[in-house]
Parts: sequence; structure tokens; C-alpha cells
Amino acid sequence: MNELSTIVSLAKRRGFIFQSSEIYGGLASTYDYGPLGVEMRRNIKDSWWKAFVHGRQDIVGLDSAILMSPQVWDASGHTSAGFADLLVDCRSCRQRFRADHLWCVFVRTAEGKKRGIGLIATSAEEALNSFHVTAKNNSKGLEMDSGPVIISDIDDETKISCPACDATATLTKPRMFNLMLKTFLGPVEDEASQTYLRPETAQGIFVNFQNVLNSTRRKLPFGIAQIGKAFRNEITVGNFIFRTREFEQMEIEYFVKPGSDEEWQERWTQDCLNWFLSLGISKDNLHIRQHDKSELAHYAKATYDIEYKFPWGWGEIQGISNRTDYDLKAHSWASGNDLTYFDEETKKQITPFVIEPSSGIDRTLLAILFDAYREEESISADGKKDKRVVLKLDPSIAPVKVAVLPLSRNEKLAPKSMELLGMLQKRFVVQYDDAQSIGRRYRRQDEIGTPLCVTIDFQTVEEDDAVTIRNRDSMDQVRVPVSNLISEISNRLPY
Amino acid sequence: MNELSTIVSLAKRRGFIFQSSEIYGGLASTYDYGPLGVEMRRNIKDSWWKAFVHGRQDIVGLDSAILMSPQVWDASGHTSAGFADLLVDCRSCRQRFRADHLWCVFVRTAEGKKRGIGLIATSAEEALNSFHVTAKNNSKGLEMDSGPVIISDIDDETKISCPACDATATLTKPRMFNLMLKTFLGPVEDEASQTYLRPETAQGIFVNFQNVLNSTRRKLPFGIAQIGKAFRNEITVGNFIFRTREFEQMEIEYFVKPGSDEEWQERWTQDCLNWFLSLGISKDNLHIRQHDKSELAHYAKATYDIEYKFPWGWGEIQGISNRTDYDLKAHSWASGNDLTYFDEETKKQITPFVIEPSSGIDRTLLAILFDAYREEESISADGKKDKRVVLKLDPSIAPVKVAVLPLSRNEKLAPKSMELLGMLQKRFVVQYDDAQSIGRRYRRQDEIGTPLCVTIDFQTVEEDDAVTIRNRDSMDQVRVPVSNLISEISNRLPY
Repeated sequence: MNELSTIVSLAKRRGFIFQSSEIYGGLASTYDYGPLGVEMRRNIKDSWWKAFVHGRQDIVGLDSAILMSPQVWDASGHTSAGFADLLVDCRSCRQRFRADHLWCVFVRTAEGKKRGIGLIATSAEEALNSFHVTAKNNSKGLEMDSGPVIISDIDDETKISCPACDATATLTKPRMFNLMLKTFLGPVEDEASQTYLRPETAQGIFVNFQNVLNSTRRKLPFGIAQIGKAFRNEITVGNFIFRTREFEQMEIEYFVKPGSDEEWQERWTQDCLNWFLSLGISKDNLHIRQHDKSELAHYAKATYDIEYKFPWGWGEIQGISNRTDYDLKAHSWASGNDLTYFDEETKKQITPFVIEPSSGIDRTLLAILFDAYREEESISADGKKDKRVVLKLDPSIAPVKVAVLPLSRNEKLAPKSMELLGMLQKRFVVQYDDAQSIGRRYRRQDEIGTPLCVTIDFQTVEEDDAVTIRNRDSMDQVRVPVSNLISEISNRLPY
Repeated sequence: MNELSTIVSLAKRRGFIFQSSEIYGGLASTYDYGPLGVEMRRNIKDSWWKAFVHGRQDIVGLDSAILMSPQVWDASGHTSAGFADLLVDCRSCRQRFRADHLWCVFVRTAEGKKRGIGLIATSAEEALNSFHVTAKNNSKGLEMDSGPVIISDIDDETKISCPACDATATLTKPRMFNLMLKTFLGPVEDEASQTYLRPETAQGIFVNFQNVLNSTRRKLPFGIAQIGKAFRNEITVGNFIFRTREFEQMEIEYFVKPGSDEEWQERWTQDCLNWFLSLGISKDNLHIRQHDKSELAHYAKATYDIEYKFPWGWGEIQGISNRTDYDLKAHSWASGNDLTYFDEETKKQITPFVIEPSSGIDRTLLAILFDAYREEESISADGKKDKRVVLKLDPSIAPVKVAVLPLSRNEKLAPKSMELLGMLQKRFVVQYDDAQSIGRRYRRQDEIGTPLCVTIDFQTVEEDDAVTIRNRDSMDQVRVPVSNLISEISNRLPY
């Protein structure tokens, strides 16, 4: 199992992923994609678009704005409790805590009074441990009276201290905190101009349902696909790019006749799994998990998750939800616009059901990095034992497809190398590198997952006008004539 | 000259561009891209990335977050006056007005007192006209005493009425209003967690300068390219997607040695112009204009604009700015991080100068639509005079490359049509259409700019296994064997 720290370090060192605003100490839980990361993102998005939009006739694309009318979020249910966390505030230090992570242990003071100590923990056991550490560090030697108890279960008369600032009786009752990031649009900053950064791309699709239907004359079943940024003011973030406040989604809303929704949900779950497999992710590290009733979102009839086996456990990289007719009906009702579909078979207006395959680019990219990372024992040129780090990325996802490497910086090799570079970069994403030994340059390309290296040597310019193609995985090298180079490379990059 | 309303109507009818949140009455100045619009956007972005990142070895990509540390915007100068409009508020109705668009005409009341009437106008002449309309509609028959005077020039003791609510003496003095959209990040909503949606992608590049340098070991001159959303709370928006509050930029920050900056700015201006020409935009509708000293942004030494001849006049579609070493020095100073570069020639640490070619996808797309739109006289099948609407889009930009059209819905044609569809959609962006007459279907494809139509007829299935390829511009049709179809199409789509 590859550790998170290994991937984070590689990602920064080689230019896949940087912490956002790093020179200013970073901005919590946002990340920037470097020169290699941006290419991987492009490849993932292109693969998805090709598979689900260009590769079939029943799905069209859309690119709706991040800023939408606030009425959209009232209608969709996002401004109400369904899209909120239960939080406790401290009136003194203004920190906020998730109510389900806030515990209390009671102690008795010298005067015999009961006092509660607030603790952040995800379980009773963790709360207890945390209390013992606190008690040990505290010269007064606190003795436990009772607990731990989760905050929601505590009588509100009890005096509890804030886990952050230690002030007493400053915690509010648990209350709902909306996950949407708000902003103000237009010249007047007040309620009227307040709106939100979309927390999902899906609603941009629903509100355009009639526009797409009218302009494309589609028949059911058909889908609308969208790739775009979404934002959630998550209280708990972490695991690198796995859960961030700014992220990018790839979503399809697939509209079907009521009654066929369950069958389509099964088909979509399989289609999505196949797409992840086509990216080269190992089958053993993927599984499908059905949501319990208690986990289901307010709009969902059933949801399947495709999960990847991350070092910290299975984590969702794709959800396939049956959103029923919830959204179209909600927007019909709230906007007063008819969002039904005329069914030619039954001659009736119907509201389609919706199957939603929804995936995150950031999580997909992270799963691919974990899955592709290998450390291999190898023997270096001078016979020493060596470690080879290699990203076994699928060629379609690799940020660089071909490295062009003159054997040395000798000026005899330069004109031919430049000529080949010019020829190849018209067709492929190419990196030119002439610094340091050829062995080190192969290793650098292995580490970023470049499938093929083309090496120009003295034989090329003096004898045979041929070059070697080195394979990343087998490390085999074959000599091919320059005249065949493009087709030899094309054959090795089958996508 | 194609009118804006013609393009807006086509864009909506055929699914290029919709008003955002339209079913809720829209959100001022944001737009959604429909099935064809999203494909055009993809094509423009891909063409740009191919030309400026993959097609050369001196530029790498980046994809930084929209949300950045607020310190970035302090350092860059965006939180201060340099990125703000001078505005006047009405204390009564809370409307805001641009100070340079707010005029006053004075009248004398029955009691002989002077009173000012506020008017929104872009010139003295417009203000005067507006006053005359107001006076005419007003039964009291106001007589002008003096004016019009722009609000900034008026003695603050004067009583002026609000142009929106007509309340008197409620207008504030002109004050600066920042153009950045703000939001709050993290669980605590106060000053500490306030940040902004980036108003330009450029700063994401500057703060990653050292990260990119370290991970790619680049030498000057080199550039970092980025495509991404940016947001500005513009007071005056309009002309469809020309000026919107949410927009997408394609920016390069090209780092050069001080002293070579002017030469590089010239080269970049030419390179960018060539790129627009490569998209098929007519040379006559493009020109280069140098900014006056008074127009220059706070960081710029010189700026060239590439402008397109829109129906409302020349409008910027690309800026090429010489940002000097302003940004790198500002971030060095503010963050305490060294953002210099070691120059191996002089053995000194230097701060590179920056040339910034910056373009908007939305404006580029709009220019392309205007430029490609044609209404041609033609003769229909039954000999009548007819109008043909055709988008003469460059094949690289056309949202659909090939339409697959069975001559009729006769079931004899279906299997072959489906077979060809399957074959072609692996390689090209294809649309299948079998509804209505073939003539109408050709016209529908012309209207969305599809370069090629492939028609399957009875001869195809009964005799020669050949199909016709129809050219959008010449309307010529040639018959080609199915076995050659892919290469025949590839030859006609040269990009």
C-alpha cells in the first residue's frame, strides 16, 4: 500500500499538485495543479467526455455558470436543512465544531460542583483518551466524574467548556450550518443580491432541461453531461485532494421513463465501473457499495457508490444516484415553468426520472496516482542495487506521452533531435530533456509515467537514421527507422 | 454586419448559449453554454492549448484554484483602489451608480430654490436628452436652470434627487467599490475567513512561480499557461457574453530577462494575432491597438489589445501586457519568499519581467460566431428562392464535424447507417439525424456549421456500398466508397 505522504511528496516535487497560495502559508484545503497535474486532469476529462458524450448519441454536453439564481437553491432544497451540518459555536472564540464530533467529560470541582469539559473526538473512546491527555497536562489533576457523552445528548443547563478557548458556558445549542459558499452579486450588497457558489453542477442541468429539449429535440432516454467546478464549505476536510472545498465534478443527468429507472441505474453503475477500469485502475482496488437508507440524500431513492481502496480505507470516487423526478418537479413547482416531457407512446406529459452518475476529477486523479505508483528493485548501470520509482499510468492518462532524449548535449546530435522534436510535438505531448546522464533521464520519465522515450544517438546521425524507443514498463529498447517513427509510436499508444 | 439579436436568437434556438437560471427570470449577466456551445468552447480551448503549450517547449500548463489566500489580493494590489470603480450610493433605495455615469440637471422650484435632478447617462448630451424625456413625462413641466454637470464636479451641499427612487439628498459622495466578489471560507464567518473569487487567473501563476521553476527546472525565457474561470462584480455589463460577471480566461505569463521584454511583447502580439487568424476569423475584422498611458493598469508598462469589429464597435478579445517585474516583486515582498531567478550568464539573482497574453473564451467565441454567420440567397429543391443560414466555422471550431444522415427512415437504410455512425463516432464528433426531409436536415447542419454531411441512400445498400459527402460551403456532393470514408473525411478536416 502506497502511503499518502509518498504521493504528496512526488506530486509536489515533480509538479503534479501544489498547495494553493503556498507562499502565503496556503489556503486550507485548496490545491493547485502543476504542469503535469493539469495534463492528467485534461486527459481524465477528455477520456470521460469521449466515452460518455462523443462516443454515444444519447448524451449531449452542457457548461452552465457557477453563479446561479438563489431561487435555484431554494427549490432544490440546498438552502434548507437537507444540505447542512449540525454545528456548535463558541460565543467567545467564534470557533465552530461539528456536533457529532463534540463530546463532554464531567469532573467534580473542589466545591463539589459538576463541570463539563468539551472535547473534539469521533468516538467515546477517542474522547476518553483525549480527556486523559488533557488531565495529565493539567497541573490540577482533574478526576473524571462521568462521561464521555456526546454533546447533543446533554441537558442544556450544564456548564461545558469550549475545547478551543476553554471558556465556560459559551457553547451554543447545536444548529444547522449550510454548506454553500455565499457571495454577493451586483452593485448592492444585501439579501437581494446574495447568491451561492454552486455546491453541485447537477442543478445547472435541471434548470436547462427544457432549453436542451427544445434545441436538440431529444427523445427519452437521453442524458446531459457536464464538467465543472463546485464548492462546499466542508467543516472536515483532508486526505490531500480527496475532500476539498473547491473541487471539479463530472456529472450526467440521465432522463428516463418512470419505471425504467432501476434498470438504468444498474446499467450506469456498470458503465461507470468500466470507465474506471479503462483508465487502468486495478479491479481489486474498486468495489461497488449500496447506500443504507440512513445515508441517502434527501432527493435519492437509491444510490450506489464506486469506491477505491485508499490507504485510509475505501473512499467514494463515483456515485450513481436515482434522483427520481424530485428535481424536475421541484423546479417546475418553484419556477412555474412546465418541465415535463411529451411521451408519444402514451400521449401524456410525464416528468422523467433521473439517474445521476457523478464523479470527481480530483478523487479520480488521486486514485489513479495511488494505483499507478510502484517502487521496483533494479540494477543500475554500474551494477549496484537501485530503486526505480515508476508511475504505471495508462498511456491515455500519462501527462507526457513521449520524451525526446539526445544521448548527450554534443552539438552533433542537436539538429536531428530538434527535427524529431518538431515532428513529434505536432502529434503527441512531448517533453525534451538533454540534462544529465541518459540513465537519470529515463528514471525521471519513469517517475512521471511517460510511456515512451525516444533516444537519438551518434549512430542515428552518422549511420542509420534510426532511433531507440524505450518502453517504460518493460524497459525494453527497440531500434526503429525515423521514417517509421510516428506509426511505431502510434501503435504503442492505443487510445 | 450581423446584428447581435440575430446571433442571440440562433444561439438560443440551436443550443449554443442560454441565459443562466432562465426559468427563474435569469441571473443578470451570466450565461450557460448548451450542447453546441460547450463543444465550441472545448475546441477553442484545445486549439489554444495545442498552439501555446503542446506545440512548443517553452511553455507549461497550470490549473490553480479559484479560491486563493486573501493576502494574494493585498499583494497584487487588487484590494486597493487600483481595481475598483468610483461609485455613488443612494442611502434610501441602496442602488449604486457609477460616478462617471451620473449627471445632474438643475431646475428652479416655484419658491425659487435650485434643485438638482440626478440622471444616468454616459455623456452630457445623453443626460440632456434624458432630462427632456423626464420633464415631458412630468406633469409639473420642469424648466431647466443649468447643467448638465457630472456628479463628481458638484458642490456637495447641493440637493440632488436619486435617479432610481427620486428621494432627495440621499446620494453619497463618490467612493471606491471593489470589483472582486467576496466569499467566506471555513466554519467561522468573519474577517479572518473572508476571501475573494479570483478576478484574474494570472495571480495563481505568479504565486506558483517557484513551484513550477523547482519542479520543471526551466530556463528563461519560459511561460506558464492557464485556462480558468474568473469573476468580476462589474457595474456595467452587457452585449450578451461580451462582458459578464463570470467569465473564462486563457492566460500566459511569459517570463523574460529584463531588457528583452519589449521585443517579446511584439512577438507575442503577433503570435496571438496569428492564432485568431488560425481560427478562421477574418483579417479585416481584427486590428491591434496600443493602450494610451491613461488606460494602462496599475502594473503595466505597455499594453496592446487585439480587437474584433463587433456590431457595436471594436472590442478587446485579447490583451498583451508588459507587467514588468511588478507582480513577482510584490509577492516576494509580501510573502517573504524569494521569487528571483538565478541567471547563469551574469551569475546574479534577477527578477524576470513578464509579458502577459490574456484572452477570454467567451469573447473569442462571440467573435467567431459573428464572423462565421452568413445569410445566403439560394434556390430550394422546388425552384423557389430561399435563404440559407450558414455558420462558416473553421472545421477545428465547428461543434459537430460530421452529420450522419440516412436519406429516409426506411428500415432498409437503418443497419448501414448505424454501422457507419458507430465507425465514425470513434474518430469524429458526429451527429445522427433522420428526422424530416434531407434538404431540411442539410439546412439544420449548415446553421450549426457542420463542415461535412454523410448521406446513406438506397444505392448505398443495394448497389455500391458508397455514400455521399456534402461540403457545407460549396454544397458540392461527392460519392465515396465506405471503405475510404475515414480517410476521405480526415483529408477534409485538416487540423
